[in-house]
Amino acid sequence: MLSTFQKKCARPLFLAYRQINTQFVTTNDNDGTREIILNHEKTKNSLSLEMMDNLIAAINTNKDDTSLRAIVLSAKGNVFSAGHNLKELQSSSGVEQHKLVFRKATELMKSIVLSPVPVIAKVNGFATAAGCQLVATCDMIVCSDTSKFSTPGANFGIFCSTPGIAVGRSVPKSRATYMLFTGEPITAQEAYESGLVTKVVPADLLDVEVNKIVEKIKHKSRSVIALGKKFYYEQIDLGLFEAYKLGEDVMVRNINTNDGQEGIKSFVEKRKAKWSHE
Amino acid sequence: MLSTFQKKCARPLFLAYRQINTQFVTTNDNDGTREIILNHEKTKNSLSLEMMDNLIAAINTNKDDTSLRAIVLSAKGNVFSAGHNLKELQSSSGVEQHKLVFRKATELMKSIVLSPVPVIAKVNGFATAAGCQLVATCDMIVCSDTSKFSTPGANFGIFCSTPGIAVGRSVPKSRATYMLFTGEPITAQEAYESGLVTKVVPADLLDVEVNKIVEKIKHKSRSVIALGKKFYYEQIDLGLFEAYKLGEDVMVRNINTNDGQEGIKSFVEKRKAKWSHE
Amino acid sequence: MLSTFQKKCARPLFLAYRQINTQFVTTNDNDGTREIILNHEKTKNSLSLEMMDNLIAAINTNKDDTSLRAIVLSAKGNVFSAGHNLKELQSSSGVEQHKLVFRKATELMKSIVLSPVPVIAKVNGFATAAGCQLVATCDMIVCSDTSKFSTPGANFGIFCSTPGIAVGRSVPKSRATYMLFTGEPITAQEAYESGLVTKVVPADLLDVEVNKIVEKIKHKSRSVIALGKKFYYEQIDLGLFEAYKLGEDVMVRNINTNDGQEGIKSFVEKRKAKWSHE
Repeated sequence: MLSTFQKKCARPLFLAYRQINTQFVTTNDNDGTREIILNHEKTKNSLSLEMMDNLIAAINTNKDDTSLRAIVLSAKGNVFSAGHNLKELQSSSGVEQHKLVFRKATELMKSIVLSPVPVIAKVNGFATAAGCQLVATCDMIVCSDTSKFSTPGANFGIFCSTPGIAVGRSVPKSRATYMLFTGEPITAQEAYESGLVTKVVPADLLDVEVNKIVEKIKHKSRSVIALGKKFYYEQIDLGLFEAYKLGEDVMVRNINTNDGQEGIKSFVEKRKAKWSHE
Repeated sequence: MLSTFQKKCARPLFLAYRQINTQFVTTNDNDGTREIILNHEKTKNSLSLEMMDNLIAAINTNKDDTSLRAIVLSAKGNVFSAGHNLKELQSSSGVEQHKLVFRKATELMKSIVLSPVPVIAKVNGFATAAGCQLVATCDMIVCSDTSKFSTPGANFGIFCSTPGIAVGRSVPKSRATYMLFTGEPITAQEAYESGLVTKVVPADLLDVEVNKIVEKIKHKSRSVIALGKKFYYEQIDLGLFEAYKLGEDVMVRNINTNDGQEGIKSFVEKRKAKWSHE
Repeated sequence: MLSTFQKKCARPLFLAYRQINTQFVTTNDNDGTREIILNHEKTKNSLSLEMMDNLIAAINTNKDDTSLRAIVLSAKGNVFSAGHNLKELQSSSGVEQHKLVFRKATELMKSIVLSPVPVIAKVNGFATAAGCQLVATCDMIVCSDTSKFSTPGANFGIFCSTPGIAVGRSVPKSRATYMLFTGEPITAQEAYESGLVTKVVPADLLDVEVNKIVEKIKHKSRSVIALGKKFYYEQIDLGLFEAYKLGEDVMVRNINTNDGQEGIKSFVEKRKAKWSHE
């Protein structure tokens, strides 16, 4: 059997990236962590159709490769993302393109939720509108203490209805309505107090903090994390008792996977687990 | 076409208020903002049938008039509202009246949720039981730092079951149960920490803070806000992917309204938008 | 009619505890409050099948006796509970036992949710995995400022999928995912900020704080609390308007119970209520 390292060498991930346009998105695979960087400062990393296509490709590339363990989503420049590209939403673009933009946005959000590995937003700047939605959709969000978040679409005649889906599931109603109806930004500290972000740190500790999280993830079995992530998002939409009914099955299945049994065995035998990740 | 100002002059809002009994509720329409003031200090602004009727009328009056842009709900005295009028719930009132009281209370809460304009609670005092429900049901809640909130119904033999619907959707379970089972008040600061309120400010800055929010709302298109508010409350009850499916349509519809296109055009043309609000 | 005190004497609760194995769980009924103490330090109060059976029995014993007013769940030692007993989940135990373990865990959680009296977790130590689930499932949670909470199952190859059901309904997504994917503990303060716990106090004030809550509960009617608790958990899984529809009926029923009418009468007559608790 090939070691994880050998597999990684045998199937170089970068090959799969040929279709990604580095003017929009750059990626960097390093020891199981893929950093995906929004790289279109001149449009404030706006989520144009091309940007969204590239992000979806970057998230999904080799997603079933067991050597991929975590995704970090970050951005170049002081705007993480300004949201949809309003030029693509002009009347002249036609309704079919408008539909395509939002279908693509949903696809992007789903690709994060359905990714088998945790997706961590590393935010150092301003995330607005669909850019805020993108951040809120990530599993975890670590931001610098100068970061800001807003959903100001109504200022431009387009209420942040779809961003509100992500934000409304991340913060209390009294805060989601404030963001959506006033369009005003909230600070990193307010985002923490509202539950929108996982951690707030000084900008120079952002990498350190994200790496801590990534390292913790990498000590675990990929397949176990994948199974758990999938169930987390399934159960959160269910009633309590229905969730438990499904949850019992998930636990039993988990235990009877290779890594479930290896985890228990290694615990009982007081040794380090050797994960197959499969 | 009439300007917004002309329209406002042509259709004086106060005419529609003839049915409102100012012993219970006073209203004040000023430049697009309607302040609705609970005005029955001697019953601690209790939500009697008459009070609820007046509040519903005040919220719904001319609600489709485009010159109405925001509602501020406040109260005279140091009790925002003490909740239902227990006298109306005595055995002697009969079950049909008891039913009427709670049907009316639901109608009041729905009138806030279904109002096309944002409703902001401006709280400077004590909001208890259905009074706390009323506050929690508003889109945004700004309170003074000496305000308090409680759901003490069980002290009087009537568990705050319906207030718990609003409060339980506004704060974490561990806090909602505390309020409901102990009946103890929480402070403004605790209400902020729990997500119940949007902002806490010193009493003398309450108007300033609420006005800031109102001004932000008034810079936007009324129809866009209305569309967004409606969808926010629809989607929050749905599963994530179902919400996105509906959300895509809402965004496309929004863009193709007059104010959606005007917003985008004005952005692309770098000028101030002129909203039709329709 | 027997007084509550006489009833308590006539039906000594301890008789019903014969089936509880005090090696696992001790119970202490005192003036309407039942303290249930996890008492198996050598397994870090692990939720073995036997422990869960004993906890379920302790929660359900005489649960319909009106002299029982509140349950406090605490633990001996500095680990509140380390979660499931991994030895029971080994391959050699067989799939049927694995199923039994999780069916029993659901039964334990349900027994808390369905208990007619409030269940308060009093935590002074570390609650992990299903131990954290147990705590999060209690109606209220009071913890010492040195307590910690984690869901580290994935470290042992078993993602905390079922603990995530309880934790995911108690804290914002950005925090639940952190706990579940990294396995890292959060502090008492972070647990408060996330909404997981009701109150954080110094360890030496833990009893005082819990007693305050219990006393508030005991001043109310048991039957009113029971009705309210049942509805709280029912409505929280429903859409807003559906919740109100059911809530109206619950309020009318509540008012027309003995203690509902007594509460209102005593209020109108400005005297202390005498509850029947039935």
